[in-house]
Amino acid sequence: MEKTAAQAYAAHIESFAVSFRYPVDFTRDAFDPENQILVSACNACGEPGPFNILFFLDSGVADKHPTLPERINAYCAARPDVFTRAGDIVIVPGGEQIKQDRKHLFSAIEKMATARLCRHSFVAVVGGGSVLDVVGLAASLVHRGLRLIRLPSTVLAQSDAGVGVKNGMDDQGMKNFLGVFAPPFAVINDFTLLSTLDDENWVGGLSEAFKVAIIKDHDFFSWLSRNAEGLGRRDMIAMEEAVHRTAVLHLRHIAGGGDPFEFGTARPLDFGHWSAHRLETLSGYSIGHGQAVSMGIALDTVYAQKKGLIRESERDQILAALSRTGLPVYCGLMARREPTGELSLCRGLRDFQEHLGGELCITLPRGIGDKVEVHEMDLFAVEEAVAFLAGQ
Amino acid sequence: MEKTAAQAYAAHIESFAVSFRYPVDFTRDAFDPENQILVSACNACGEPGPFNILFFLDSGVADKHPTLPERINAYCAARPDVFTRAGDIVIVPGGEQIKQDRKHLFSAIEKMATARLCRHSFVAVVGGGSVLDVVGLAASLVHRGLRLIRLPSTVLAQSDAGVGVKNGMDDQGMKNFLGVFAPPFAVINDFTLLSTLDDENWVGGLSEAFKVAIIKDHDFFSWLSRNAEGLGRRDMIAMEEAVHRTAVLHLRHIAGGGDPFEFGTARPLDFGHWSAHRLETLSGYSIGHGQAVSMGIALDTVYAQKKGLIRESERDQILAALSRTGLPVYCGLMARREPTGELSLCRGLRDFQEHLGGELCITLPRGIGDKVEVHEMDLFAVEEAVAFLAGQ
Repeated sequence: MEKTAAQAYAAHIESFAVSFRYPVDFTRDAFDPENQILVSACNACGEPGPFNILFFLDSGVADKHPTLPERINAYCAARPDVFTRAGDIVIVPGGEQIKQDRKHLFSAIEKMATARLCRHSFVAVVGGGSVLDVVGLAASLVHRGLRLIRLPSTVLAQSDAGVGVKNGMDDQGMKNFLGVFAPPFAVINDFTLLSTLDDENWVGGLSEAFKVAIIKDHDFFSWLSRNAEGLGRRDMIAMEEAVHRTAVLHLRHIAGGGDPFEFGTARPLDFGHWSAHRLETLSGYSIGHGQAVSMGIALDTVYAQKKGLIRESERDQILAALSRTGLPVYCGLMARREPTGELSLCRGLRDFQEHLGGELCITLPRGIGDKVEVHEMDLFAVEEAVAFLAGQ
Repeated sequence: MEKTAAQAYAAHIESFAVSFRYPVDFTRDAFDPENQILVSACNACGEPGPFNILFFLDSGVADKHPTLPERINAYCAARPDVFTRAGDIVIVPGGEQIKQDRKHLFSAIEKMATARLCRHSFVAVVGGGSVLDVVGLAASLVHRGLRLIRLPSTVLAQSDAGVGVKNGMDDQGMKNFLGVFAPPFAVINDFTLLSTLDDENWVGGLSEAFKVAIIKDHDFFSWLSRNAEGLGRRDMIAMEEAVHRTAVLHLRHIAGGGDPFEFGTARPLDFGHWSAHRLETLSGYSIGHGQAVSMGIALDTVYAQKKGLIRESERDQILAALSRTGLPVYCGLMARREPTGELSLCRGLRDFQEHLGGELCITLPRGIGDKVEVHEMDLFAVEEAVAFLAGQ
């Protein structure tokens, strides 16, 4: 062989597309004996049943719905032509803790192995966003991907993360450091699960509705603004509409935004999130994600007004609507400073850029219902925005 | 809220496609100071450099190429406009062992975290298939996917797994139990790395060339048959052509086969693999993957002749070409029996079906250069095929 730096053969360039398609259903009482949604979701694979299915259930949901396991069992037992149970329902810890230790990931993987699931089997997971994230990551790793059916149990998960294409867990001291893009096989939003949420989780999830309305849908913002008190007072019919509209806006963005697996740097759906993630960390996760996002939205809204992107009246409408819903727009941590004098919050910009990669890219509202991407943040104006919110 | 099983809102069905595109280059001496291939691969991202890059190197390659680390360092140092080193070259254990313990996966993840890689950073990995699999899995999990450049170091990896879209590791006692589909950012096949392979790995990799030629490309099979002795005697020019043709056939299958992420059950590129995987396991991995695949091809070739799919003369051409290359067509393990009297090999059919999921689907040759999928295997004919090979 001649020692040469030359190209030995022409490069071969591969281009191909992978198509994904999944339904997001909205229902009540998914395990009512008459409810056909889960059956239809499985049958949509086009293969003959019965299907091997393994259920994972968030401990928080199990506590609030003590009869749910027996109802799931009865639902499946009544349909032996559709379901073969690959194992007993697996109860997993709810909340952030499940994302913070690999043992929970590997425990879920082990359950899937013991159940001898194959790539045509189903994993159904009922729970909040953290449980969906970890069980979803396990399901996407086993045999390079099982069929995942998500039944999100919180407002946040039903309207945002639970209908999307990501999963993840914390590692190496970083939020969502590990995960993959893996579209689910189906999502079933069962509104009945929302009725037992505590007030913080009920109202917290609405911050994602405000987020997407402010940057994408003026009419929806107006609707949220008109229904703010009702939503905060647990009007279920209003909540169903809020969840449905928010989920559909998120889904349209994933399917129509041109970058479902986020290869680029723009992340419009992360509006308000750079400071939200930082606030969660600074609080040691005593501030919930939804509440943190609400404060992040408030901060970027005030910032956008200071930069001339929205009017004062629009800023005030946004802040008022968040407050009337019961969502916070400020807390003392936002004003905390590092020994250097810098706002502790501002490290969130660096973390955000590192997680997304490449150039900094922050989405801000332009009026209400439209958005703009900026690639730097004026730290002086961030200081002013914090001071403005502190004085409210 | 009314308690009802009704659908609350119409189902929202998402359909979208994700496009992938990656180059596979063929070169010699990729880290020659003049070689521009790695530079071009990084620049193809379209972003301004320099790029953060972290190298992982297979300990087996490092042993055979002791100057490679300093040459990689010099290559990058000479191009400060292109490369920023995110950390020192990471040497990882070569061979199957790296796939068999999660600690190697998490060690790679930790290195990526320490190097503060972001989703626009590059991980370059030089090594055999096992190292590519584990470092690739780590890279696809960190921040939900870093940019992976593979430099496969074996015939097997350059012509098959290293140019494809999978990664993986063993877990729960099963081969490749965990992994994801994750197309690389680029693949650089550096033929110079092949020159130091031991004979077993040199010749073993050719079994994948035979595999794909027999089911897809009669001309290529004829070429392999004519060049069998030369390939076995380490003719590098012939090997370069064999690797190039095999890689291109694999790539065309991935891009043009309609199912790059293997959602269906057909797996033509697994021809010969149901028994190969089982032989590897039965031997405690003392039989290499390439040698096992060669025996798997031989078995399914004889089986195909017994089922009237290929002629005796074609069967004999295939067996002769494998043998003249130096590849095995039989070993005593193939005739081992369970206490029940069943061939131990036959459990491989069950394992294979479970890993792929759904219906059993085995690819067999139809003549030479074409294939057919069958959904059951006649165990009596398998016994006959084993006996035929034992008597050769």
